[in-house]
Amino acid sequence: MSTARSLGLWTDGVNSLPTGANNAITDVPGVTVGHRTLQGDGLATGVTAVVPHQGDLFRSKVRGAVEVINGFGKSGGLVQIAELGTIETPILLTNTFGVAACTEALIRRAIEQNPKIGRQTSTVNAVVCECNDGQISDIQAMAVTVDDAFAALDAAAPGVVEQGAVGAGTGMTAFGFKAGIGTSSRHFSMGKQEFTLGSLVLANFGRAGDLTLPDGRRPSPNDVSAPEQGSIIVIVATDLPLGDRQLQRVARRAGAGIARLGAFWGNGSGDIVVSFTTADQVVHEGPDFQTVQMLDNDHIDLAFRAAAEATQEAILNALAAAPATTGRSGKVFPSLADWAKEQQR
Amino acid sequence: MSTARSLGLWTDGVNSLPTGANNAITDVPGVTVGHRTLQGDGLATGVTAVVPHQGDLFRSKVRGAVEVINGFGKSGGLVQIAELGTIETPILLTNTFGVAACTEALIRRAIEQNPKIGRQTSTVNAVVCECNDGQISDIQAMAVTVDDAFAALDAAAPGVVEQGAVGAGTGMTAFGFKAGIGTSSRHFSMGKQEFTLGSLVLANFGRAGDLTLPDGRRPSPNDVSAPEQGSIIVIVATDLPLGDRQLQRVARRAGAGIARLGAFWGNGSGDIVVSFTTADQVVHEGPDFQTVQMLDNDHIDLAFRAAAEATQEAILNALAAAPATTGRSGKVFPSLADWAKEQQR
Amino acid sequence: MSTARSLGLWTDGVNSLPTGANNAITDVPGVTVGHRTLQGDGLATGVTAVVPHQGDLFRSKVRGAVEVINGFGKSGGLVQIAELGTIETPILLTNTFGVAACTEALIRRAIEQNPKIGRQTSTVNAVVCECNDGQISDIQAMAVTVDDAFAALDAAAPGVVEQGAVGAGTGMTAFGFKAGIGTSSRHFSMGKQEFTLGSLVLANFGRAGDLTLPDGRRPSPNDVSAPEQGSIIVIVATDLPLGDRQLQRVARRAGAGIARLGAFWGNGSGDIVVSFTTADQVVHEGPDFQTVQMLDNDHIDLAFRAAAEATQEAILNALAAAPATTGRSGKVFPSLADWAKEQQR
Amino acid sequence: MSTARSLGLWTDGVNSLPTGANNAITDVPGVTVGHRTLQGDGLATGVTAVVPHQGDLFRSKVRGAVEVINGFGKSGGLVQIAELGTIETPILLTNTFGVAACTEALIRRAIEQNPKIGRQTSTVNAVVCECNDGQISDIQAMAVTVDDAFAALDAAAPGVVEQGAVGAGTGMTAFGFKAGIGTSSRHFSMGKQEFTLGSLVLANFGRAGDLTLPDGRRPSPNDVSAPEQGSIIVIVATDLPLGDRQLQRVARRAGAGIARLGAFWGNGSGDIVVSFTTADQVVHEGPDFQTVQMLDNDHIDLAFRAAAEATQEAILNALAAAPATTGRSGKVFPSLADWAKEQQR
Repeated sequence: MSTARSLGLWTDGVNSLPTGANNAITDVPGVTVGHRTLQGDGLATGVTAVVPHQGDLFRSKVRGAVEVINGFGKSGGLVQIAELGTIETPILLTNTFGVAACTEALIRRAIEQNPKIGRQTSTVNAVVCECNDGQISDIQAMAVTVDDAFAALDAAAPGVVEQGAVGAGTGMTAFGFKAGIGTSSRHFSMGKQEFTLGSLVLANFGRAGDLTLPDGRRPSPNDVSAPEQGSIIVIVATDLPLGDRQLQRVARRAGAGIARLGAFWGNGSGDIVVSFTTADQVVHEGPDFQTVQMLDNDHIDLAFRAAAEATQEAILNALAAAPATTGRSGKVFPSLADWAKEQQR
Repeated sequence: MSTARSLGLWTDGVNSLPTGANNAITDVPGVTVGHRTLQGDGLATGVTAVVPHQGDLFRSKVRGAVEVINGFGKSGGLVQIAELGTIETPILLTNTFGVAACTEALIRRAIEQNPKIGRQTSTVNAVVCECNDGQISDIQAMAVTVDDAFAALDAAAPGVVEQGAVGAGTGMTAFGFKAGIGTSSRHFSMGKQEFTLGSLVLANFGRAGDLTLPDGRRPSPNDVSAPEQGSIIVIVATDLPLGDRQLQRVARRAGAGIARLGAFWGNGSGDIVVSFTTADQVVHEGPDFQTVQMLDNDHIDLAFRAAAEATQEAILNALAAAPATTGRSGKVFPSLADWAKEQQR
Repeated sequence: MSTARSLGLWTDGVNSLPTGANNAITDVPGVTVGHRTLQGDGLATGVTAVVPHQGDLFRSKVRGAVEVINGFGKSGGLVQIAELGTIETPILLTNTFGVAACTEALIRRAIEQNPKIGRQTSTVNAVVCECNDGQISDIQAMAVTVDDAFAALDAAAPGVVEQGAVGAGTGMTAFGFKAGIGTSSRHFSMGKQEFTLGSLVLANFGRAGDLTLPDGRRPSPNDVSAPEQGSIIVIVATDLPLGDRQLQRVARRAGAGIARLGAFWGNGSGDIVVSFTTADQVVHEGPDFQTVQMLDNDHIDLAFRAAAEATQEAILNALAAAPATTGRSGKVFPSLADWAKEQQR
Repeated sequence: MSTARSLGLWTDGVNSLPTGANNAITDVPGVTVGHRTLQGDGLATGVTAVVPHQGDLFRSKVRGAVEVINGFGKSGGLVQIAELGTIETPILLTNTFGVAACTEALIRRAIEQNPKIGRQTSTVNAVVCECNDGQISDIQAMAVTVDDAFAALDAAAPGVVEQGAVGAGTGMTAFGFKAGIGTSSRHFSMGKQEFTLGSLVLANFGRAGDLTLPDGRRPSPNDVSAPEQGSIIVIVATDLPLGDRQLQRVARRAGAGIARLGAFWGNGSGDIVVSFTTADQVVHEGPDFQTVQMLDNDHIDLAFRAAAEATQEAILNALAAAPATTGRSGKVFPSLADWAKEQQR
């Protein structure tokens, strides 16, 4: 699997932070990622699951936040995260018309684990984010099923994350190139503790001709006539103790990572960030008060920097790992890896 | 069908506005409402459709807005309305676990009418709002189907709106009483033109003992031990020419109508308002520029007043029209109409 | 000094909370209030100071939040509170054109105490809120000075708060009656601890004819022709441990208290709420991490109820304590206390 | 005066837009800019005025919006712009402790032109934005006076804009280099009409070592130990017909321009954008309805691109035009122009 770094597409600056062990969102302890890929019969779509921890999320919610950079999107569950600052299901990524099936899957799984849901206790807020892969996949087929969502959840694992044209990323494109799922992480110390922040993207955005690499090169596919379209979903995970407003502020900085690559958060793009911390958990129907560690705002810049850098690199990784693909209309979406190898000759 | 006025529950103030012909959201020309009710086998749920106009909504979008008063809710489609200020499907109301089916129904209907959706043109943003009727209905049955949503859409009609325990309101309660769907409207002139603003609510909120009528009486069921729970969805329609920011400001005033009844927008309540104007429509893939009439902010107070009053009365109408019902646990939710008749003796 | 309760204007409901000892924002331990009143020579204006605690606020900031119910207003310092969730100066209330002088006063006081401000450490965010008292006072005189702001700060004291036409409230009106400064508090227990929440208002809002008392009576001055205008500033203080997002949610509920009196947050009204907790303090240039107690959202309804009730009663107290006054144009603003006594005959 | 282009610091991409005639915010017809510079006696500060049109702004307001990218700032007037979507005074930029004096100046000027303000009509919302120039100037001197603000307003002129260490920019720094005022513009056609969008920045942000040029070079001063601090104010002007929500969306894209240079909108940075259109004006106490041209959202990407590009280049222009300066503590802030010339050898 090619990466931005293996292809020479990444350049550190003087203040850049080091990556985690796998340069992946799974470097945050407890976070796992799983894919379900659907291909053939005109389909190139799927589901990707990001699971914040390995316990019962409904009973041990993670603190979370949402930043809507541009809201041309149909993601589900965002309103409640914004109000309560908690996430109580895994996060599923899929195509735009797969949101309903993924929502149903998350509800069914939660009820299975917690039969009181909607009866003796509150309902459950399913978090599902989406991009439109209709250029490559037959989105009207509404092919993603509840079982596909279960498969992605069941496949979730720690360690190295498969990237590029896989899971929800199977049919996605960015800047005129084939893209999909990418991830990256940053490592830093604060006080006397070590922390990790990871970003995972479903990259399906950016006008052809706009891509700008950290070293200033501007890879462009042959055809730059298409308007900006598509979307990008970013999931930011960390083990740094942050309040929900702080998590939103960190999420916002993913937008800086997107912009640095030459994008401007186009009108037709659903650019949405969901962030969470595993540092402490919010117990369902827990005690009145909980004691939490909270980062002082004056020290939050490292987390901001990590979110911007990791998101920028995660997008490049999504591009680096995806092979050239032909779309439904016959249009070819080239591979950035091929471009990079061409350059290296 | 009892109403707040027929039961003596409504009192006008010196500045109050008159109602429209049917005292319903359908007094706004072009707006229709349809219900699909599911009852029996432990179910008391359904779907209610509010259709902004009778044309193809995807091609002729209405200008719209969202106000999240308290975001403990799982409604779909709100993020895109907030970003673009347009609504491109009918609005469906249902129970919390019916959102996925209703979303799928709206997508299928839109594709049927516009086969380019998701292929040659953008995807479609389905708007579905919900409350939890689990106290009365078996919500885990996930009983609402795509066909139920179609039935509600197909039933949409102008004129008098059936209220109380009907459609999405079948299993809802408020302030410890049985509640459900209610509607009301206000009529006013601005410049030399006449306008109507209507509100339709799915009322499922309010702690028992908190209900305060406009004349100060406080109807209370026998049992006031239950905490605030539930939610309220408000749909505000008008033919007044408003921009999307103005529509959000009008939507916010629905919250005043809710508060006047003694509620405080509780933590566990998804209090969400969707508003739209039929005054002009936004053409899909239309011309670069559109000429629109826009109300000056200095004159918007009449619309604010109308939204607060109509929402306050719509909630009372939902309560007035619903008969006493026994919940799943055997708890009785009395009828406010019975209380009112008792008072009149 | 007449109060809403002494005049029979307040009615408890079955779920209402008890007041604190003085029924004032100063019931929150550490909070003090001071007034500086300017009268004569066409002036009826002033400054009111709310001081969150008696230490150095720049070095020991209180956690705070802002809710802009309607933003027709010129208050200063709100943007930074919303971003950082902290308040680092006392809060001054004054007339619209007194904001600049009060801002300068808060900056000078802070520099006096902390000479590093703006040099070796960050600048200071002065919090000043305002309403327009131009109907009664000559606002163009820009009469409020830096020394007046100092005088209000120096007068700040615990215990009973003078209300009505005093301090910043000297020239304010509401619902066609003379109004001004009012305050109220609520007391409640959570877990095994006791907490207080207090509200102080600068009431200058509401259309004549709209005022609705808790018992349904609608006191109306003779002249109801004037449009909604003016504004209301609400300061909510508590010793309950809350995060900044939670403080904003509590602040929002002050809007319910306003709406219950018949107002609808008019277009020309700057309806702004600033809230803070004294439960823990944020140390300037403090350690990376701080351990804080945080209320679980599931238990926040008591604070919501307290904010709505205390704000509703604080406004009635502002009206109850203010004597009839003649405005600059000769228009008389009657006293609600006179109306209440007339009713009692 | 050096500019980014004259120093070889700017690189166009394949989709980049051309500049306006003067590559300045004044390319938008009617917009003027004026400076008042204060130097000597430990001062290096001032005021910069951006005047949206040459008429009476209180009576003919421009449609406007605010985007708070990071709200560590003390700007005045933003809350009302966000609510009403209009701007009714010139916009003044100054140092953090100059806001009060500039506010007073704008109020006095407005009253002079409209003696009814605050008496027979509403008060006026003064718009003043700020950065902290305390590293170079003695900010505690609170040296900016009402007369300095008047001088900046009186100096406002069309055509070429003086940039770098001038007006409010006199004491500002960015990325460890001396910075200040910069401006740039973009020109584009939509439908059959030509439009211009211009950006003017007060650049005082960015950690040393983070600056990344469009061609990937990373100019770094010798000392990169200082944390991110400072702020950036961006004023975006256009003659494109936009609604207020659209203007906010355009304002948000200025953040992309900032991020592309390597910044991440640091915690201590007040990154605030004010945008306005001169396309139509909102008449004070005007008719109930106004007919406006409104851009369809589907065509807004050109304006987004223009805002991102013009802001990115405006910042580089602020850096390019400013000479090396020694701060109050003896620290030297080098000139990016010197760096660029060194590189060209």
